[in-house]
Amino acid sequence: MSDLQEAKESLSENLQLVISLLEKHEPRERLAHDQDIGELQKKLDALHPADVAHILEALPLEDRLNLWELVKADRDGDILLEVSDSVRQSLIADMDSHELLAAAEQLDTDELADLAPDLPKDVLQDLMDSLDAQNRERLQSTLSYPEDAVGAHMDFDIVTIREDITLEVALRYLRRLGNLPELTDKLFVVDRNDILQGVLPLKRMVVNDLEASVADVMATDAVVFHPEDITDAAAQAFERYDLVTAPVVDTNNKLVGRVTVDAVMDFIRDESESDMLSLAGLREEEDFFASIWKSVQNRWAWLAVNLVTALVASRVIGLFEGSIAKIVALAALMPIVAGIGGNSGNQTITMIVRGLALGQISSHNMQSLIKKELGVSLLNGLFWGGVLGLIAYALYRNYQLSLVMMTAITLNLLLAAIMGVMIPLGMTKFGRDPAVGSSVLITAVTDSGGFFIFLGLATIFLFK
Amino acid sequence: MSDLQEAKESLSENLQLVISLLEKHEPRERLAHDQDIGELQKKLDALHPADVAHILEALPLEDRLNLWELVKADRDGDILLEVSDSVRQSLIADMDSHELLAAAEQLDTDELADLAPDLPKDVLQDLMDSLDAQNRERLQSTLSYPEDAVGAHMDFDIVTIREDITLEVALRYLRRLGNLPELTDKLFVVDRNDILQGVLPLKRMVVNDLEASVADVMATDAVVFHPEDITDAAAQAFERYDLVTAPVVDTNNKLVGRVTVDAVMDFIRDESESDMLSLAGLREEEDFFASIWKSVQNRWAWLAVNLVTALVASRVIGLFEGSIAKIVALAALMPIVAGIGGNSGNQTITMIVRGLALGQISSHNMQSLIKKELGVSLLNGLFWGGVLGLIAYALYRNYQLSLVMMTAITLNLLLAAIMGVMIPLGMTKFGRDPAVGSSVLITAVTDSGGFFIFLGLATIFLFK
Repeated sequence: MSDLQEAKESLSENLQLVISLLEKHEPRERLAHDQDIGELQKKLDALHPADVAHILEALPLEDRLNLWELVKADRDGDILLEVSDSVRQSLIADMDSHELLAAAEQLDTDELADLAPDLPKDVLQDLMDSLDAQNRERLQSTLSYPEDAVGAHMDFDIVTIREDITLEVALRYLRRLGNLPELTDKLFVVDRNDILQGVLPLKRMVVNDLEASVADVMATDAVVFHPEDITDAAAQAFERYDLVTAPVVDTNNKLVGRVTVDAVMDFIRDESESDMLSLAGLREEEDFFASIWKSVQNRWAWLAVNLVTALVASRVIGLFEGSIAKIVALAALMPIVAGIGGNSGNQTITMIVRGLALGQISSHNMQSLIKKELGVSLLNGLFWGGVLGLIAYALYRNYQLSLVMMTAITLNLLLAAIMGVMIPLGMTKFGRDPAVGSSVLITAVTDSGGFFIFLGLATIFLFK
Repeated sequence: MSDLQEAKESLSENLQLVISLLEKHEPRERLAHDQDIGELQKKLDALHPADVAHILEALPLEDRLNLWELVKADRDGDILLEVSDSVRQSLIADMDSHELLAAAEQLDTDELADLAPDLPKDVLQDLMDSLDAQNRERLQSTLSYPEDAVGAHMDFDIVTIREDITLEVALRYLRRLGNLPELTDKLFVVDRNDILQGVLPLKRMVVNDLEASVADVMATDAVVFHPEDITDAAAQAFERYDLVTAPVVDTNNKLVGRVTVDAVMDFIRDESESDMLSLAGLREEEDFFASIWKSVQNRWAWLAVNLVTALVASRVIGLFEGSIAKIVALAALMPIVAGIGGNSGNQTITMIVRGLALGQISSHNMQSLIKKELGVSLLNGLFWGGVLGLIAYALYRNYQLSLVMMTAITLNLLLAAIMGVMIPLGMTKFGRDPAVGSSVLITAVTDSGGFFIFLGLATIFLFK
């Protein structure tokens, strides 16, 4: 039994070991000559590829490449599959075509498909040439689907049987196979033309009479997917119906592959991460030890957008410079109005983006959502506006200023509520991902809007 | 075959139908007397509990309760398990003790444990009394673990066998059982004291010789969990080793339950959602159609925190009111310095929070991370600071003001880089979840810091 706690401890021990070892041996040439290194290599070989990948992720670039040198060549492929995209690129950049080809040749077609986008063109071509016709066709078809389609995530580890045999014959066939692919929880029942007739869960095979026929025992109401189905919907189906594997069929119901819960979990994890990253304005996953220049490229676009919106807000303030010159307190109070609006708007947007992702919100309930958010904002606005009005009075002893403050906060929160619902719904309507950029847009609106409302009201009511 | 696309379409058709039907029949009393309602009820009965749950989630409160009335009582329990916490509370509030008890009695112990926290105390007590000793003990033990421990997520649907029998005998035993629990992909091999000896995947049962003994075929290196293990680590193990189920044992290696991939997926989904929600300052999942008052309660705490930080920033500005009165342009430019710092700081924080969650970042690589982030900020600061310096010059024709602007932006970005690394690492060090509040803290630092740096530099260099 490998104990989780022990496994974790040994992993972090190994990590410390790796780091201390690699720190001792800076020049890469000297690595192979050392006794400690032999020991490290032995430890590495005993680790699961996913664990080696984990260690590689946590190392700065130079250490990472040193360690990568130590990994046995016949495990390269499996480990490349487990690391994140950015780390994979750093490792591949360090390998020559010969090494890459050797690593790729150990992999299944669906695994190759995961790796292919990161391979140099000539290596990919050599690889295609080395495959037999069936696998080449599979690889090309997998690569042809976009990332958000089921076809890009399916594999071909399918075991098929015919419906007219008995369970006893089926079991004899399996024993002849001697081994079933990872995660096999069901066999796919097809006719001679590979048309799917049903699925036969192993669970049912082992509890039913051996004389029963496959047709009697198989399930005919199983969930099936098409390669063009949206992966997100497929993932929801996996969660909803507790699936482990599911068949993928073409329009003629011909079996073309399967989806596993493993691929679905990877997808969910990637999706939720990319949502988080896009909310913060990062373009893609960033290797923690990527070069400074790569990181700048990853982040500059959103900083630029932010800068434009900040400039707009600045020009709005510029419109009221005359008023600020007369009452400087306005300059000190205005960021509060803008800030609380941005905070409240982002709360609304997060709710709506989540509801859209779960399929629980669409334009038909937009009205009732806006009504609710307006109610929440009105209550918050009157209360917090009141509190801040009092604080403003305590600071500046100007009751008109207090009233302007309270009114501006309430109005900016109402603006945040309306835009917080409409921005993500509008983006969805125009076919855009509401997680990308919604947060920047709402902040732009509540900043410029907040400054305009507050300084505008002040100009009208304090200088009449 | 139930086609995913068809299923989705029928679901959304049903949703439209439900809405149109429920809109026609406002008073709940009249519902039962209508012909359309009979049809709707038939459709509801044909749906999977998860699909009914999905429809309930998407309906405003009143419609939701109307629909809930139509659901057959014997399905209440399964559906309550599938809805989100907030919707569950709204449904339970509408049921009397008798209905709740009837619903709960249809559930397994682990399912009861999911439901228990939302049940009224007296119903929970009645329920406990109705259980036999073993199930009562199981329920109490599951409830005793915190949400982030494996014990809170395990179930008891375990099938055990002895190691000294042949596969043939084992298969005969399974055929006598006639049915295996959902998601069963392996049997647990135990001795007479329930001490775990190994696991026997169904996959191996169907490909090995019937004469082989369980001991020969079983896997002894399977991943096992303890009830106290952190669920997040368990989830990572499920992803890393592609598990479907795994045994849970106590300190004596006695089998106490199992964890399924289904429970793990729910946990991952919940975690990533709660990360997103806490980044935006929402305390918990919010029902889209929750009452305004409940929503205000969910959101007010973070608005309050935001307000305090905004007040601090406002007082920082207040320190420099004299300078602003002399050059009003400062008031228009200062939000840009604060804003770009906040944006950049949030990018850094998002990266670090993600790295911490994946276990790829800890204090040992803090230094190299800070160095990298400082490099990124210096480049961004010089470039964007330069651009904004030029724009400020074009607007105000004051080259000293331009230089102050450029320097302040660079310094604020450097501040954002340092704090963006140190805030989440510091929170982790003190045992707090870095996803909660990091974003608010960094924005507070870059706002107050940005104002202070910009206005301070301006006061020193423009008025000497």
